[in-house]
Amino acid sequence: MNKKEEVVFICPRCGFKTTEYHWRCPKCGSPLNILYRKVWQPRGKGLLRYSSMLPFKPKKTLGEGSTPLIVRRIKGVRVFFKLEYLNPTGSFKDRGALLSLSYARLKGFRRVVEDTSGNTGIAVTAYSKLHGMRPLIVMPKYAPRGKKLLIKALGGEIVETPTRGDAASKVLELVDKDTFYVAHTWSPFFIIGASTIAYEAFEQGFRGGVVIAPIGSGGLFLGLYYGLKDLAEWGMIREHLSFIGVEGESVTPIYEELYGKPGIIGDSSLADGVMVPNPPRAKEIADILRKHNGRIVLVNNNDILRALKELYRLGFVVEPTSTLPYIALLKMLEEKIIDKGENVLIPLTGSGLKTLDVFERYK
Amino acid sequence: MNKKEEVVFICPRCGFKTTEYHWRCPKCGSPLNILYRKVWQPRGKGLLRYSSMLPFKPKKTLGEGSTPLIVRRIKGVRVFFKLEYLNPTGSFKDRGALLSLSYARLKGFRRVVEDTSGNTGIAVTAYSKLHGMRPLIVMPKYAPRGKKLLIKALGGEIVETPTRGDAASKVLELVDKDTFYVAHTWSPFFIIGASTIAYEAFEQGFRGGVVIAPIGSGGLFLGLYYGLKDLAEWGMIREHLSFIGVEGESVTPIYEELYGKPGIIGDSSLADGVMVPNPPRAKEIADILRKHNGRIVLVNNNDILRALKELYRLGFVVEPTSTLPYIALLKMLEEKIIDKGENVLIPLTGSGLKTLDVFERYK
Repeated sequence: MNKKEEVVFICPRCGFKTTEYHWRCPKCGSPLNILYRKVWQPRGKGLLRYSSMLPFKPKKTLGEGSTPLIVRRIKGVRVFFKLEYLNPTGSFKDRGALLSLSYARLKGFRRVVEDTSGNTGIAVTAYSKLHGMRPLIVMPKYAPRGKKLLIKALGGEIVETPTRGDAASKVLELVDKDTFYVAHTWSPFFIIGASTIAYEAFEQGFRGGVVIAPIGSGGLFLGLYYGLKDLAEWGMIREHLSFIGVEGESVTPIYEELYGKPGIIGDSSLADGVMVPNPPRAKEIADILRKHNGRIVLVNNNDILRALKELYRLGFVVEPTSTLPYIALLKMLEEKIIDKGENVLIPLTGSGLKTLDVFERYK
Repeated sequence: MNKKEEVVFICPRCGFKTTEYHWRCPKCGSPLNILYRKVWQPRGKGLLRYSSMLPFKPKKTLGEGSTPLIVRRIKGVRVFFKLEYLNPTGSFKDRGALLSLSYARLKGFRRVVEDTSGNTGIAVTAYSKLHGMRPLIVMPKYAPRGKKLLIKALGGEIVETPTRGDAASKVLELVDKDTFYVAHTWSPFFIIGASTIAYEAFEQGFRGGVVIAPIGSGGLFLGLYYGLKDLAEWGMIREHLSFIGVEGESVTPIYEELYGKPGIIGDSSLADGVMVPNPPRAKEIADILRKHNGRIVLVNNNDILRALKELYRLGFVVEPTSTLPYIALLKMLEEKIIDKGENVLIPLTGSGLKTLDVFERYK
């Protein structure tokens, strides 16, 4: 990594700065951000089109980015569906994984570890192998068999733990000076990766309106927010922007952070992609929602099954977690929180080809 | 459909012309082609970028086309992998389905029927629903459960028959004046759809070399051939072009047509996507191969499993049928039929997210 491309991390809480890799602030434990200058000079295709908006320029690609934006009129609203499930490994996580693992390679890491049970493990494996690094994914025994098969097929090793919590502690034992801990729920790379979704949506015709995103760790939400904020500050987006987050009723940390009370207790186990109990950036997300008069909408399995059916009839082959913003849209239309004539941006996050068995289990 | 956009079918064998829809020549039984003028005026994104190269301009889209082209150096050869598995329903069939079903809608059909057990049924269902038509897919009882689930989820009805052969005869009983028979193995729309892969590859940097395609009914092969031939005739491609077809050892009709003798008898059951016993355009394909000094390469399940593993390690999440051109490349490199320094175009046809169980069955 040459001097010009050196990545500088900064702690937004205590101000600590470093060019060494840390997955969180070694002084105060906060998530870190990256300090760099952005210039709007889109050029070429895919995620690399926005290299001037990134802290460094990745050299390799698996074809991530440049996903289609499909506009449909639904109950008087123009919905901009961003088809993130058409990324190379089937989810938007490919964007952050490209950045994170390109960085790890530039810094000379040889091995990669990550704790996850979902799409991140798949993306981390593919991009580690692309960069010639050895990926080791720590995941709970009960993680979906299909996702384990895919990780192994892509060349990843798996370490199984009894629970998701055990995975999170186990992974820390495996980190050493040659081993890169991705830590996607903390990582600024995954937020910057998600910002490229906003840049693409803008270039494809989204000029402002309501942005609705599912929130697990919140990387997608934050990426869309910061990405569109850049464009608004530069006068490229002049229409209003508002932001809605969606959680499942089973796990509602941002709802609790925002409203200071527990959410509805229900079953949203189908939305496994957003079941993140302690997202490190919860306060950051709640602050943004507060500042912009945003809100958190909660959904459950019944909502998800109904919405899944509707999205497939529209031709969108998505996984259950991807239905969350669509459900929130329908609820807010019903409660007249979103007006007719509004423009709404909805990222469709993950491929339903991985989760076809849901149609077998729930008829 | 206005006069200007009227689609004219022509029979290449007996010269019969018609603006009525027929899935094959009503006079002589040959597959039909479409008579129209092409103009190179790419504009916009996705398949619709090539509207001036199509017989009419489709009005709706599910985001098909604009798939990534990834270049990798493999054993001294530059391989241009075209990631067709990142189309909306997970295969290149979306391109032909868009054209075929847009046409059906313009002609006022209300219902759609097709016999298939694979990706075509999925694509036909999605694009029928997009255009407000009712799709009915006739498929053998033993077709993969996952594909049936997806067809139903997308809003298709399924009629099951004992065998694939029964499906082909059953479907004809279901055709009436309101019902459009897609007949993708005969259809010129699926060939024209596949030509847009060639146009994209050209614009993404492929300037000639060896083109290797799996052959089932041959729509992909013919589409790539005619698409690149257009560009070569217009002087846009000046380098040499050669064409290789790949079949599985279980079903080898083009091999037989070309060489006048049976192929190797082996097991290629993993490549279900190319198991088409009597492709209607077999002679057309063999004539092209003969004229251009091309060849048919045959592969079996052992080849497929080895190649599948290698392609996943490269980060390509493909189905077994998609490995065929890659296997052919390796064989031809070994036999020095393809030289080092050559450019090779390989379409990766279908998503492996539908077929992850293959890694469970074959360890």
